[in-house]
Amino acid sequence: MNAELIAVGTEMLLGQIVNTNAAYLARTLAHLGIGSRYQQVVGDNQKRLDGAITVAEKRSDIIVLMGGLGPTPDDLTKQTLAAHLGRELVTDANHHDKLVAMAKRKQQALTPNNLVQAMLPSGATPLTNHNGLAVGAFMEDGGHRYVLLPGPPREFKMMVDKELVPLLAGQQQQVLASETMHFFGLGESALVTEIGDIIAEQGNPTVAPYIGDYEVELRLTARADNDEDAQAMIAPMRTGILQRIGQYYYGSGDKTLAAHVVHALEDAGATITAAESLTAGAFQSALGSVAGASNVLNGGFVTYAPSAKEQLVGVDADVIASDGVVSAATAQAMATGAQRTLGADIGVGLTGVAGPDGLEGHPAGTVWIGLAVGDHVTATEFHFQGSRNDVRGRAVKSALLMVLQALKK
Amino acid sequence: MNAELIAVGTEMLLGQIVNTNAAYLARTLAHLGIGSRYQQVVGDNQKRLDGAITVAEKRSDIIVLMGGLGPTPDDLTKQTLAAHLGRELVTDANHHDKLVAMAKRKQQALTPNNLVQAMLPSGATPLTNHNGLAVGAFMEDGGHRYVLLPGPPREFKMMVDKELVPLLAGQQQQVLASETMHFFGLGESALVTEIGDIIAEQGNPTVAPYIGDYEVELRLTARADNDEDAQAMIAPMRTGILQRIGQYYYGSGDKTLAAHVVHALEDAGATITAAESLTAGAFQSALGSVAGASNVLNGGFVTYAPSAKEQLVGVDADVIASDGVVSAATAQAMATGAQRTLGADIGVGLTGVAGPDGLEGHPAGTVWIGLAVGDHVTATEFHFQGSRNDVRGRAVKSALLMVLQALKK
Repeated sequence: MNAELIAVGTEMLLGQIVNTNAAYLARTLAHLGIGSRYQQVVGDNQKRLDGAITVAEKRSDIIVLMGGLGPTPDDLTKQTLAAHLGRELVTDANHHDKLVAMAKRKQQALTPNNLVQAMLPSGATPLTNHNGLAVGAFMEDGGHRYVLLPGPPREFKMMVDKELVPLLAGQQQQVLASETMHFFGLGESALVTEIGDIIAEQGNPTVAPYIGDYEVELRLTARADNDEDAQAMIAPMRTGILQRIGQYYYGSGDKTLAAHVVHALEDAGATITAAESLTAGAFQSALGSVAGASNVLNGGFVTYAPSAKEQLVGVDADVIASDGVVSAATAQAMATGAQRTLGADIGVGLTGVAGPDGLEGHPAGTVWIGLAVGDHVTATEFHFQGSRNDVRGRAVKSALLMVLQALKK
Repeated sequence: MNAELIAVGTEMLLGQIVNTNAAYLARTLAHLGIGSRYQQVVGDNQKRLDGAITVAEKRSDIIVLMGGLGPTPDDLTKQTLAAHLGRELVTDANHHDKLVAMAKRKQQALTPNNLVQAMLPSGATPLTNHNGLAVGAFMEDGGHRYVLLPGPPREFKMMVDKELVPLLAGQQQQVLASETMHFFGLGESALVTEIGDIIAEQGNPTVAPYIGDYEVELRLTARADNDEDAQAMIAPMRTGILQRIGQYYYGSGDKTLAAHVVHALEDAGATITAAESLTAGAFQSALGSVAGASNVLNGGFVTYAPSAKEQLVGVDADVIASDGVVSAATAQAMATGAQRTLGADIGVGLTGVAGPDGLEGHPAGTVWIGLAVGDHVTATEFHFQGSRNDVRGRAVKSALLMVLQALKK
């Protein structure tokens, strides 16, 4: 069972947008056990799109057309597919009503181009567009399955998740269960080596690695006759993975590392603050990116210059003079200084050398992270690779992980 | 003259990575006046890759193969192309020497797979890999041009920019000059409508829009017999664009908006600070992302809770009680409070409702940005669309633009 993904849009041929939809859908289909051997990108051209469909029919079972369902003259995907299959276009009442309501609200006339968005090939199953106006479609014809999906990523992802996945899963005999495990602090090739035996022996469940921002995800997917059995099959693989690389694991699911930290702080009824030098607010901003951050974060500091470390969080000038800003002593003093000034339960101090130049004899990438939890304060040294902003990003994530690990003790 | 981009890699078919290389190269080729009508993605499979090359030869002039030049058994792109063209593989001395030196440094043996990285089809022009070990290649054969490029984006982009572009440009009769103009505060479809006449009438120079993070870029490209003439052709189009949407323009080139701000502050010999509520450090972090930020940023505040606004930057409790935190008065007080506490020339205050819930009767997306420059303080109200983090991101950019505009007066 193979799918072929055909992205339609001249803007992709001009490099104006990146084809993120293809990666999202390919990943989703792989999790359903549906493989893919080919992807194509064609422009807004009926003849070339028709040719691409013909090529795909010779070698793939499921043909997915992504994009070109909109109201402009360039949007011709559904018309091309309908003509290719010799089907008329018919109107889906639900999406037609949405179009009419939208036009009323905006006091605009509905042009024929607009109305096409609510149409689909006769006999197809409509796929609801929860985030837009263009209806998607699924149909079977001549031994192939065809899918029409809208281009805008918000509309695309929602339709894939809410409409296409249940439809395809429902056509399968078995049930799938999966878990996405998140790891930080180990690069992808090293991680894959550590669990090399598990990867080599996989059958059911499968394990697939994905790279995130300085993180690695492992997606475990099991198939069985029912959900309970599928879930149970995941557990031994999960255990085996944790035995090998558990020290880098921070959680499963869709939550960001920052969300794990904010929720753990909420569960502990604890508040947090920070004094940030090289990261200049990025650590606190990560916390602020999580809804509910106000329950755990009241405020904090950016202490970029040595003078600000002294003035804002009371770091002793003598400590800076003797140890330098890139030191355990300064990192700890920043953590406790912020913690005490704001009366928070936890204080974090981030100081180091983002680069590209070295500082105080330390090479770019040298970072000290201080952590004050109640009366106890520690500092940990790191050496991060990469650009200035790689160093800052890795420092933020290391600090988040330190806080999470402290809360789990 | 049409190019066809073929990305080679099973990881793309599994959705494990996004095909950013294709967008980068398509954009680069478009700027050279080389169009593209098709893109393909195939897996690490010799038979299917050979088939993809054959398909491409029927319809495109330049065939670019991206990825699969590495040292593992899955890497077979150059072998497949060489076999397809009936050419032997020969060793490039420079890349061979690099491999030998690397192996010596790591005290590793060089396997045959490793050595293949330094090989290319006989008669091809080597393209130097400045960031890795696999040599790229360019060759002409039977009326087509073929290009081999490595997969890792750092290696890919460098080879495209430093090796492929000069080679292709050198094969052209004319010279290209271009300018990338950056706009913030106007969505892409509105912007494209504002300059609709310029877009419709374009010939030489061309103008192409690109979407960034809450920004729009316009790339103007002119071709002429020499660089001076090409540059001169850009000027009238640039002027026409600025006449229509100049109020949203913040600069040209490759610099981020934050870099424009840091450099403008450096030029003015001015220091900056901020008190951030909803953005929680993201504004200061944006400044900190620019090398040289320490020349203009000594420190600042995250004042997430009302109590921190009072404690850290001296916002009057009465002001919060009467006007609320989402107000001009509070934004101004935050800006001047931070400015005075740190003795900075410029102070910025960011306060508002990130969402998803409303606050003090204001809907999500309501943001006040206070700006204190010397003795003068103002506040501006915004209503941003999108998710919680869209609101925060747009607030940061709006604040950066306000600072830049203040410095340019």
